Amino acid sequence: MISETKIVHFDSLRLDSGEELAPVQVAYETWGELNAARSNAILIVHAFSGDAHAAGVSAETGQTGWWDNMIGPGKAFDTDKYFVLCTNCLGGCRGTTGPSSTDPATGAPYAMKFPVITVADMVRLQKKVIDHLGIRRLLAISGGSMGGMQVLQWAVAYPEAVACAIPIATTARHSAQQIAFNEVGRQAIMADPEWCEGNYYGKTRPARGLAVARMVGHITYMSDDSMREKFGRRLRGKEEFGFDFSAEFEVESYLRYRGSQFVDRFDANSYLYITKAMDYFDLTLGQPSLAAALRPATARFLLISFTSDWLYPSYQSLEIVRALRSLNRDVAYCELPSNYGHDAFLVDVAEQTDIVRGYLASTYREAAA
Amino acid sequence: MISETKIVHFDSLRLDSGEELAPVQVAYETWGELNAARSNAILIVHAFSGDAHAAGVSAETGQTGWWDNMIGPGKAFDTDKYFVLCTNCLGGCRGTTGPSSTDPATGAPYAMKFPVITVADMVRLQKKVIDHLGIRRLLAISGGSMGGMQVLQWAVAYPEAVACAIPIATTARHSAQQIAFNEVGRQAIMADPEWCEGNYYGKTRPARGLAVARMVGHITYMSDDSMREKFGRRLRGKEEFGFDFSAEFEVESYLRYRGSQFVDRFDANSYLYITKAMDYFDLTLGQPSLAAALRPATARFLLISFTSDWLYPSYQSLEIVRALRSLNRDVAYCELPSNYGHDAFLVDVAEQTDIVRGYLASTYREAAA
Repeated sequence: MISETKIVHFDSLRLDSGEELAPVQVAYETWGELNAARSNAILIVHAFSGDAHAAGVSAETGQTGWWDNMIGPGKAFDTDKYFVLCTNCLGGCRGTTGPSSTDPATGAPYAMKFPVITVADMVRLQKKVIDHLGIRRLLAISGGSMGGMQVLQWAVAYPEAVACAIPIATTARHSAQQIAFNEVGRQAIMADPEWCEGNYYGKTRPARGLAVARMVGHITYMSDDSMREKFGRRLRGKEEFGFDFSAEFEVESYLRYRGSQFVDRFDANSYLYITKAMDYFDLTLGQPSLAAALRPATARFLLISFTSDWLYPSYQSLEIVRALRSLNRDVAYCELPSNYGHDAFLVDVAEQTDIVRGYLASTYREAAA
Repeated sequence: MISETKIVHFDSLRLDSGEELAPVQVAYETWGELNAARSNAILIVHAFSGDAHAAGVSAETGQTGWWDNMIGPGKAFDTDKYFVLCTNCLGGCRGTTGPSSTDPATGAPYAMKFPVITVADMVRLQKKVIDHLGIRRLLAISGGSMGGMQVLQWAVAYPEAVACAIPIATTARHSAQQIAFNEVGRQAIMADPEWCEGNYYGKTRPARGLAVARMVGHITYMSDDSMREKFGRRLRGKEEFGFDFSAEFEVESYLRYRGSQFVDRFDANSYLYITKAMDYFDLTLGQPSLAAALRPATARFLLISFTSDWLYPSYQSLEIVRALRSLNRDVAYCELPSNYGHDAFLVDVAEQTDIVRGYLASTYREAAA
């Protein structure tokens, strides 16, 4: 399955901060065919560091999409039946307008002049793409982590446009611990002198700070168990301690590698803006309760979390389930056993596939009936 | 209770790396009186960032010791009954020889020429202090976190010198996840250009890198629950989002403050060396099993862990308990309920006090009998 990134342009986007971003472009990819009734569209929303290339092999880079194990012919999001699309989020660095985009006022990259954005802003921009494609109602919207936050925001902001919502490994509001881990990443970037208050474009990038930020991220995406299984205390290419500060444990080497690799594909300022949007995310803001916040949502819900995910623990999904149930909404919930921690929604997909496939099929039948 | 730091000098110390450190000095503090039989001495061993000032008010700085709630007249380590002492660990920066000490070969600070050290090296140096004080057998040795590792090492290396061992919130070997968090801290420091390969003494210190490292540490010392209780999503001094990158959440402000505060009292190179010693710690190294590793230990053991400690989870204490039990050693274990995470052994001490006090009293009675 070859996939190509397309770009759509919009005149402007109103933001929660009160600012207006103009113009705005969105990178997106699609798989499968939109049916005549335009009733088989599924929007996939990516996590913090994802992009529009969710599935297939990129015509440009040859790389496989980040959720290719879930999207394709016969897979959970079956492209033989459904029209699946994914957009790069607002603030990103993979085709959608973000801090590395050109500020029309100056002709230079926005850098830190980019307005602070929210998850609701990301969703508002996705809605423009859906409208542009002539889709009035999504069969489903699904994503994990920050993707799950967008799913929840969609269900509340555009209830008439969502038949079913599948938020995975996510929360209705970022917790103090989640904010804290993001803040450490931001501080690591901003502590790097190459960051230059964000004005590093065309110069040396804050690679070391961004790599450290990513290393913290990777630890939180795995579990104690999965790190033990994958690395344990194994040394890299030697039998005995070297009594030096090289990356001698395999886990050190892995983290350094993943950190440095990330620097090649991600923009440090996008890291700042997107983590900030996650930290701002709180469905209950200005509401007496989570149930009150979710009242506008009319979609069917399927929530999934994973036993070993300590970054977005199951209790955070269960809060959402309880609130929806108190509103007598149609809500299903599964806690799947996995050792993979938060990464489970990306890598441990066998059971997730069965559950999502069946859920989509029944939603599709009901929508058609 | 006023306390003063004393210094003791030794000609040299043999290290696990094969190198010899010469000369070596150790900073220590003591509270209470050593009895005539020299049978009431308790060695307290500190965690990663601690120092010899465990109790009382420092004559120099006016600061209260890091375990003052546990050490003093009528407290868990009752200075009316026991002679309690604490040394700054090898590699530290609070009076004991470490990377900031002068290298006699050059007349300049060792910096990264300081030899890589281990927990066993720390313990070997403490044994010299105990010998120097004429104490042949410690009534008890206790400490949490890295302190607990030293307790275990003492019990195995000098079984005849330890009547009872009280390792708290610790492990017999650093796990991949624990190594990973330490490695992130080290990378944050080494990514700071002010670090200058360790040669920052007399110049600008790598304050930003060290602060980021400390921020990561603080998150791991707390629990999801305790962060929610302490900070939640509260904003600092305002009601609404500022749509900027200031420390607007209270948790951000707290982490930045604790990070910057740490820089004033801790040496970045000590951070590197001490975390490395923790990562090297593995009682089972070269042994077929943990039980085999613990076979030399003859002390009575009391292990304590805390329900919400996810950095040194209870299962790691239970592994030690199981191994000791399989050797038919005298071993007691308590998992104490606490929301404070790994910090619990420092802050949530009511139940810990009762348990330790009783355990010491019975050990003292039996030792005297």
